[in-house]
Amino acid sequence: MAQPATLQVAVVGTGKMGADHVRRIQRVISGARVTAVVDVDAERAKAVAARVEGCTAYTDPAAAMAAADVDAVLIASPGPAHEAALLTAFEHDLPVLCEKPLTPDAASALRVMEAELRLGRRRLQVGFMRRYDAEYMKLKSLLGTGQLGRPLMLHNRHRNVASPPGWRSEMLINDSVVHEMDVTRWLLGHEITAVTVLRPAPSANAPDQMQDPQFVVFETDGGAIVDVEIFVNCGFGYQVQAEVVCERGTARIGDGHAMVTNMAGRWGGTIAQDFVERFADAYDREVQAWVDATRRGEVTGPGVWDGYAVAAVCEAGVRALEEGGRVEVELVERPALYDVS
Amino acid sequence: MAQPATLQVAVVGTGKMGADHVRRIQRVISGARVTAVVDVDAERAKAVAARVEGCTAYTDPAAAMAAADVDAVLIASPGPAHEAALLTAFEHDLPVLCEKPLTPDAASALRVMEAELRLGRRRLQVGFMRRYDAEYMKLKSLLGTGQLGRPLMLHNRHRNVASPPGWRSEMLINDSVVHEMDVTRWLLGHEITAVTVLRPAPSANAPDQMQDPQFVVFETDGGAIVDVEIFVNCGFGYQVQAEVVCERGTARIGDGHAMVTNMAGRWGGTIAQDFVERFADAYDREVQAWVDATRRGEVTGPGVWDGYAVAAVCEAGVRALEEGGRVEVELVERPALYDVS
Amino acid sequence: MAQPATLQVAVVGTGKMGADHVRRIQRVISGARVTAVVDVDAERAKAVAARVEGCTAYTDPAAAMAAADVDAVLIASPGPAHEAALLTAFEHDLPVLCEKPLTPDAASALRVMEAELRLGRRRLQVGFMRRYDAEYMKLKSLLGTGQLGRPLMLHNRHRNVASPPGWRSEMLINDSVVHEMDVTRWLLGHEITAVTVLRPAPSANAPDQMQDPQFVVFETDGGAIVDVEIFVNCGFGYQVQAEVVCERGTARIGDGHAMVTNMAGRWGGTIAQDFVERFADAYDREVQAWVDATRRGEVTGPGVWDGYAVAAVCEAGVRALEEGGRVEVELVERPALYDVS
Amino acid sequence: MAQPATLQVAVVGTGKMGADHVRRIQRVISGARVTAVVDVDAERAKAVAARVEGCTAYTDPAAAMAAADVDAVLIASPGPAHEAALLTAFEHDLPVLCEKPLTPDAASALRVMEAELRLGRRRLQVGFMRRYDAEYMKLKSLLGTGQLGRPLMLHNRHRNVASPPGWRSEMLINDSVVHEMDVTRWLLGHEITAVTVLRPAPSANAPDQMQDPQFVVFETDGGAIVDVEIFVNCGFGYQVQAEVVCERGTARIGDGHAMVTNMAGRWGGTIAQDFVERFADAYDREVQAWVDATRRGEVTGPGVWDGYAVAAVCEAGVRALEEGGRVEVELVERPALYDVS
Repeated sequence: MAQPATLQVAVVGTGKMGADHVRRIQRVISGARVTAVVDVDAERAKAVAARVEGCTAYTDPAAAMAAADVDAVLIASPGPAHEAALLTAFEHDLPVLCEKPLTPDAASALRVMEAELRLGRRRLQVGFMRRYDAEYMKLKSLLGTGQLGRPLMLHNRHRNVASPPGWRSEMLINDSVVHEMDVTRWLLGHEITAVTVLRPAPSANAPDQMQDPQFVVFETDGGAIVDVEIFVNCGFGYQVQAEVVCERGTARIGDGHAMVTNMAGRWGGTIAQDFVERFADAYDREVQAWVDATRRGEVTGPGVWDGYAVAAVCEAGVRALEEGGRVEVELVERPALYDVS
Repeated sequence: MAQPATLQVAVVGTGKMGADHVRRIQRVISGARVTAVVDVDAERAKAVAARVEGCTAYTDPAAAMAAADVDAVLIASPGPAHEAALLTAFEHDLPVLCEKPLTPDAASALRVMEAELRLGRRRLQVGFMRRYDAEYMKLKSLLGTGQLGRPLMLHNRHRNVASPPGWRSEMLINDSVVHEMDVTRWLLGHEITAVTVLRPAPSANAPDQMQDPQFVVFETDGGAIVDVEIFVNCGFGYQVQAEVVCERGTARIGDGHAMVTNMAGRWGGTIAQDFVERFADAYDREVQAWVDATRRGEVTGPGVWDGYAVAAVCEAGVRALEEGGRVEVELVERPALYDVS
Repeated sequence: MAQPATLQVAVVGTGKMGADHVRRIQRVISGARVTAVVDVDAERAKAVAARVEGCTAYTDPAAAMAAADVDAVLIASPGPAHEAALLTAFEHDLPVLCEKPLTPDAASALRVMEAELRLGRRRLQVGFMRRYDAEYMKLKSLLGTGQLGRPLMLHNRHRNVASPPGWRSEMLINDSVVHEMDVTRWLLGHEITAVTVLRPAPSANAPDQMQDPQFVVFETDGGAIVDVEIFVNCGFGYQVQAEVVCERGTARIGDGHAMVTNMAGRWGGTIAQDFVERFADAYDREVQAWVDATRRGEVTGPGVWDGYAVAAVCEAGVRALEEGGRVEVELVERPALYDVS
Repeated sequence: MAQPATLQVAVVGTGKMGADHVRRIQRVISGARVTAVVDVDAERAKAVAARVEGCTAYTDPAAAMAAADVDAVLIASPGPAHEAALLTAFEHDLPVLCEKPLTPDAASALRVMEAELRLGRRRLQVGFMRRYDAEYMKLKSLLGTGQLGRPLMLHNRHRNVASPPGWRSEMLINDSVVHEMDVTRWLLGHEITAVTVLRPAPSANAPDQMQDPQFVVFETDGGAIVDVEIFVNCGFGYQVQAEVVCERGTARIGDGHAMVTNMAGRWGGTIAQDFVERFADAYDREVQAWVDATRRGEVTGPGVWDGYAVAAVCEAGVRALEEGGRVEVELVERPALYDVS
């Protein structure tokens, strides 16, 4: 049997992330090509389109999605623009890969969910790329074997060299810990039911007024306790680690010990300096998996329900950060469309 | 200048721990010998004494402490017997090494403190042996250099293969996490101000009714957040790990990676199976350090204040376990005798 | 500027390796597609072709190379068939990626070299895929910085679970250590000048008459000493490790410590069980790099000179194995076409 | 049963090593005290004696050994002085712990052996302290279980920051690789039958005329191949590593990964800077074991045969270094007194 035709993708947003996805689709992965790029900045869209044969530049996502040579949409525009773009994609019944966050809050995520429910089938994948990281996949696979028994606790470390300009305390929850929220739900197969944020005395290297680091604790409906150290001005590197503690053993990923040197009185190795370095392979695998599934007419990755649930946990997390104490997470009932098979 | 005379030690309690200390003093370390052993079980005391030249067996600690050939006392009897033995030792103005806990609760620890204050000088060392473990010492020393900046968080793992018969949920706090309480105070130089105990769904391998594992969070007066995973039926080994997260870096101990094998599809090594294996060197170093300091007329190790402070944190921890939520620690004002030099 | 057109590749040989390359070009990498497959077994060729849209099956490499829709050739047939296929590819002036070995001996490799020299430009890349492994690339890159100083020694371990049926002692040199020969030359930038093979008492798990393990020592024209443990019936896994010792430090790769578990008294992780698992990413990167370079009209990977030099070292190695003692390597003078830029 | 009386030790040689042993006996271990110190430098001997109660200073080893308060002798004088001191100790039938080398060459070692044979019982232990290192002991113990099968190869790394002033090429064999000779014989239970020394282009950091590093290969009568990288000006630390490759697995020691830090873009830890740091515990354990055995009237450590065999291998090694090629080791037949029980 022959393979389905090459997937023709419109990439919405041509900033750093969008441009990188264009490069990925054209130069790295198989089975897709970029036929449209969209950006409110027309010059930027044109510049990106010019580097790709047969690619048209647009400023309006709706125009791109209406084009005959567009089969699927990859959304990499800023979060506040996602809802409108997603709803338009649904109107054209186009499959979508949407960079995280799905939308900026739970209410708007719910509106997207309702639109997909009206379509009656899953069309959307959210860009939680850690699910495609080789180490996280190994960890998930090990848990699936049952060798370690039931998961009881999950310890996470999430460290960045320095926060970008303009970052504020709640962004540690919304932009960083958001990944551990998805990882928790996916690895354990639990929903998060409550969030507590503890506030160490901030590092002298954190910007004024920023609560950095934070120590975040999740409770889950499966009875697990999950802790996350988020430290976005740790100074030394980009480091993402996770240890699952189960009834009969533990498993840890993220040590990143590829090459070991002995030099000047020290043994050890280098630490990745940003998420692009750490998760480059995960992005490649994520987009390849999305292209492959889309060509088969399927959605296999995290979807609207995941984007919504994480948005609700973020809202609880930000309240916990601001008010202190433990905040419970409220979720709507999960529609059958999102039942885990 | 010649060395002081050999220290003549009475060992009170000849159970597993006491008998091991007798062996240590006689066969491993330098500068001391055991001249008296005390046990309410006269036969057991005699049996131990018979193996040591010039050693007398007693059933009454006071009789041993009154003996002419006793210069110092090592207390390894059960916790409830400590207070009486310590007060007797103080009456004889004898230097003491007292196995942890100092006493079973903060009120009795305060009475011991008052007795030592009346002596007007420090005579007592508490057996928090982790301070003498090579890895903890390295960690303390690294923190002391200031290279990493100020400590912000401390992550601890404390795992036992299986809990002894008769263990109950609160013993995870009083007998196990007690070590992390002392380690926190010593490593960071902070007092613990509040305790929260989170309760994962218990492991199927924990005895009925036992809350195991527990996830314990300390807040400190230096603004640090400290977490402790205590899991006394983890099944796979005895494992004690600590990672300090500072402003400019982190340091982790306890991986225990001495010998690495490749065998049957796996690389790795063995995990210690009990604390004797893991901390044998720490006990040797602790007792040697106590003997050396005592022969010089000094107390250099953790003292009554440390025993008291930890007892108070234990009480808060047990309340936090039983009642849920966050419990604040109440300490008396620290007497000047216990000022850190 | 637009990208060059999609590269149309004929894959010669549709055994395990060839079929995997077809899958890779069609499903994993970007910029190429398989338009022809060749196998002496017509049924096998047809079966593979049937799974690829627009792909024709051939039994004669020359027929495939003459086809209008073939721009480049990937040779994955058995070694003895390489010379004829390569010479035919050169006649059609087609770029080639040839699985190792280039040819079975130095004399035939020289004939291929002469044919490429007649073309007057490099057209051939040999499939030494370790040069595309992320860890080896990091090691090469570190050496390139000069931080560690000049390389003095290189220690290699190369272990397989079990040798395939029919393996003989000299295949440990020709099929396994051949990789360390290329790695040595590439990492250090030296030619190998002499080979010694030491013969430990064979493992009881090696087939009768097989000298396994072997301990091979290279000397290089840059004064380095290189040792290789080759052990093809080690039983526990597939393991490839390298440590370069330089004037100011060392660097080691291949520990493969991605996920660490604690379980049943042991910490550690799994060892890859075959080269496909260990080097899957390297193959992907190799073929992508070859496609990218070929579309630009370049050859950037290891070439005919590398294939020839390694063949000559293999011949010396087999003599050293059979005769004992140290055997010098004889190379022709390197043609200017193969000068390292 | 009571313990034997405290062992009264004469320490011959009060240089760095001798003085450290005096400290060790007095301050660290149990069951012995130093009653005599001997040094040709009378002032140095007196200075050391003055720090120890009841210790007499001598300039003549024979005088110390004749003293009534001397039960045993620890020889830490320079190698050329060993033979005379050892023969005198044998005349007084005193047990001896002799720092390595036993004597400077095989011929003098043979004379010491003959003297001990005349005594008719083993009285001498040689100071090969690696046998008392916790990691080497674990490795030996693992090999003893037979889990890994028969040892086939042993890879060793032996690196020093910088060579002391006055060091010459042959000292890398006689003073450094000598430890791997003993380790090989002890770990594998084989005698070494041939030595080859390969000479990489020397490091720019090695003193003029010094062949550093060297790559040394042993063959053994059990069919094992053993390689030793000796590099005494590696610049970065003191590092001793060993990996045994057996029929079913391998085991490696010496990574020294106690504390792991993340700092300034790097993960890892510190490397010991000298053998005192690396092997402090081994020396303590060695002397304690010697004292314990001596008090029981036994010799349990490496003895004269080991000292002799290693001296013979050193002679072969130096010839291999100077002449190139492979040099066979000639040993006398092993007297029954030295049969391994």
